[in-house]
Amino acid sequence: MATDKKVEQITDMEVDFAKWYTDVCKKAELIEYSSVKGMFILRPYGYAIWENIQAELDRRFKETEHQNVYMPMLIPESLLQKEKDHVVGFAPECAWVTLGGSEELEEKLCIRPTSETLFCDHWHNIVHSWRDLPLLYNQWCSVLRWEKTTRPFLRHREFLWQEGHTLHATAEEAIAETEQQLETYADLCENVLAMPVVRGCKTDKEKFAGAVRTYTIECMMHDRKALQSGTSHYFGTGFAEAFDISFTDKENKPTNPHQTSWGLSTRIIGGIIMTHGDNNGLVLPPKIAPIQVIVLPIAQHKEGVIEKAQELVGRLKAAGLRVKGDFSENSPGWKFAEYEMKGVPLRVEIGPKDIEAGHCVCVRRDSGEKITVELTELEARVSELLEEIHKGLFAKAKKNLEEHSFTASSVEEVKNIVENGGGFIKTMWCGDLECELAMKEKAGVSSRCMPLEQEHLGNVCPVCGKPAQKMIIWGVAY
Amino acid sequence: MATDKKVEQITDMEVDFAKWYTDVCKKAELIEYSSVKGMFILRPYGYAIWENIQAELDRRFKETEHQNVYMPMLIPESLLQKEKDHVVGFAPECAWVTLGGSEELEEKLCIRPTSETLFCDHWHNIVHSWRDLPLLYNQWCSVLRWEKTTRPFLRHREFLWQEGHTLHATAEEAIAETEQQLETYADLCENVLAMPVVRGCKTDKEKFAGAVRTYTIECMMHDRKALQSGTSHYFGTGFAEAFDISFTDKENKPTNPHQTSWGLSTRIIGGIIMTHGDNNGLVLPPKIAPIQVIVLPIAQHKEGVIEKAQELVGRLKAAGLRVKGDFSENSPGWKFAEYEMKGVPLRVEIGPKDIEAGHCVCVRRDSGEKITVELTELEARVSELLEEIHKGLFAKAKKNLEEHSFTASSVEEVKNIVENGGGFIKTMWCGDLECELAMKEKAGVSSRCMPLEQEHLGNVCPVCGKPAQKMIIWGVAY
Repeated sequence: MATDKKVEQITDMEVDFAKWYTDVCKKAELIEYSSVKGMFILRPYGYAIWENIQAELDRRFKETEHQNVYMPMLIPESLLQKEKDHVVGFAPECAWVTLGGSEELEEKLCIRPTSETLFCDHWHNIVHSWRDLPLLYNQWCSVLRWEKTTRPFLRHREFLWQEGHTLHATAEEAIAETEQQLETYADLCENVLAMPVVRGCKTDKEKFAGAVRTYTIECMMHDRKALQSGTSHYFGTGFAEAFDISFTDKENKPTNPHQTSWGLSTRIIGGIIMTHGDNNGLVLPPKIAPIQVIVLPIAQHKEGVIEKAQELVGRLKAAGLRVKGDFSENSPGWKFAEYEMKGVPLRVEIGPKDIEAGHCVCVRRDSGEKITVELTELEARVSELLEEIHKGLFAKAKKNLEEHSFTASSVEEVKNIVENGGGFIKTMWCGDLECELAMKEKAGVSSRCMPLEQEHLGNVCPVCGKPAQKMIIWGVAY
Repeated sequence: MATDKKVEQITDMEVDFAKWYTDVCKKAELIEYSSVKGMFILRPYGYAIWENIQAELDRRFKETEHQNVYMPMLIPESLLQKEKDHVVGFAPECAWVTLGGSEELEEKLCIRPTSETLFCDHWHNIVHSWRDLPLLYNQWCSVLRWEKTTRPFLRHREFLWQEGHTLHATAEEAIAETEQQLETYADLCENVLAMPVVRGCKTDKEKFAGAVRTYTIECMMHDRKALQSGTSHYFGTGFAEAFDISFTDKENKPTNPHQTSWGLSTRIIGGIIMTHGDNNGLVLPPKIAPIQVIVLPIAQHKEGVIEKAQELVGRLKAAGLRVKGDFSENSPGWKFAEYEMKGVPLRVEIGPKDIEAGHCVCVRRDSGEKITVELTELEARVSELLEEIHKGLFAKAKKNLEEHSFTASSVEEVKNIVENGGGFIKTMWCGDLECELAMKEKAGVSSRCMPLEQEHLGNVCPVCGKPAQKMIIWGVAY
């Protein structure tokens, strides 16, 4: 009956990486286009990945005493304008509500592109004494940015994210918070998503609108481009001054508190796809895969096969794994391709001969390796294999990062590396905006970050020849 | 140091129920007003209640094979207009986006007041065969309705909710789904929130815009007013026809599928407050209380008291309870009042004499009853007490519902009951809109629902004297 289902081919990534990427997004049923340009539908399988990422982050936030809140989604124009740098950065990409019901609004309202101004407006009302600090808040929500060009997960006009917002008595405390959250993101990427990261600070040009300092984690995609995967900002007292947030300190002196914000969005799912995916489709890291194990009966019309497969599903579920059995009438070949496309980390096959021999066959999505597993050892071996897959994915991505990280000491050299496929290119830098713009102009790369782990590659800026201040990483970015 | 903190008084509910209600919302730090009229801030304590409700519902949805998705928040005007009854119901309260960046939009976009049209637009693209059905989707999000008058939790311009949307091959299946979700809501209310419900169907006048049938659960608040707490709608094929959603059935015939939607919002938190609260503040049902047990040291300056109290916190946490210890320098009196205001179900007091005697004192928030508990039996007794508190709250609310449920056989009688404090008033009804409007006009009540459990109270409609079709419940509603 159901054998009319076909596995559709996707474009090879070597042929057209961008086309391969959108093919995977669609064919793995992660996302679908909607009737509004640049706004996407997160389908059940895509949303389930996001839910698993949410659970991992939310647990980490709560363990570190952060509390979730919910602010309104609309910001009055006058509120957005209070912090000067912030409004310059965000106003050009706001969507504006001008009509409520049939009534024209006296002041237009923007759908939040980010919520600093809303948190500050609230804090102005509730912060009075040093006893009210720190405030460690987080919000799960969607935000809107009216982008001109959009791509699934990487750039939506509306995207889901979490935005943390905290307020502290001192700069030291606020900076420690900013760095702690960067570590949380790095931990998520490396230990959950199997994506190695480079930690660093953004240049003034690239930092968040209104921030004193922006920390970032940068990941390298399969095509050697960079993906900014999570950012954490220290604001100093700029917003607090603009919004008149003040507390009396222990000496009874009115003081402006120090502020941070930090965010990670559904963009990271694009990163997962472009880090681990292959020409058969998605490859999901086991810790956030909606289905960690797919159990497939072989020759399921034979007596006892479906029952045995169902038994394995039950045992793996009882062991706390996310497992599914597919007992539909589609052919095994169709099922193989389908769950490969969906990136299910491990396939468990069981047929009459396996049952007789008291084992099953496990097939790794990452390597294609087949492992015969005794049924008596099923739960333990499957858990081990999932752990090995995580490590394998991380090692492979790390290798890609390391093999395509370069150092250069001239603009020409940077340009050559870019023309030969590019990657992360380290140089020294004088710190001037002019040289940052010149590098973009001449070599086609933007600054990704000034790594927290600095190296001394030389004494001068490769662009202007003046004394170098910092090592910086250049790259082509999503 | 911190003894400057004061417990602020709230208005007695007997003096001014509406003022009491907003006092509780603010003083228990559930909600705060924002800079946008009618939009509220859910503070950490209020949001934590919502998160616990979400977890309870989400688990139930997933156990019944529903999948979460995320649709765009903006609806093009032409999409909203496709289903005629629906647009008439919602267009007057839409907020419209007319500007994107600096550019005027060609078609204005409304912020979703509900998402039927978005789901249908998507389904039009992905539904082809009977094999694609049923589709059992749910979405957690916020929606906007440009209300003229607003009240914390009960009526916001923006509120958080879940909206389930499902598509089925047959009417029977869709109706079964609609009823199943009503049962899920009733289960949540009764067994989690300790709020007894009346299950019923809405009249045509009160049903959801575009629905064939709307099921509802109605709860009675402390002031005897009704709160519509969750609704579940059967749409027939109306939307499917308007959006051209069609599947080929097993006989290869093109067919329109049958549709449902169902929603429950943060409004339910208003219901919890008005069902269980008292003049000392909030009273939370234990199963969703962010803090189920507050442990307070008595004479905490005495040696060993704080350590012992911390030990109790650790033991109760290990037993899986949400527990907090307050070791601040605020006075015990302040702490008692603070956690009463916050509705913490159980207070555990431990002082030097208790330690000596090997027990602690548990104080129930619902009844004020003090129970001495042997420390050796701490975890078991505290869990039992929480269960007893749930039952106590339910019994009290049930008593309120039963004592203020009346039957009437004339408009005059209904009016008399309303003038004497009101409640849920059952009468027969002919089914005509005219009589429904007349009852509103003459007795000041609206129809709440036609209960699923019907009783035969007589043969005629009390308004027009014509043959009765149904028993109906009238009341004053939030």
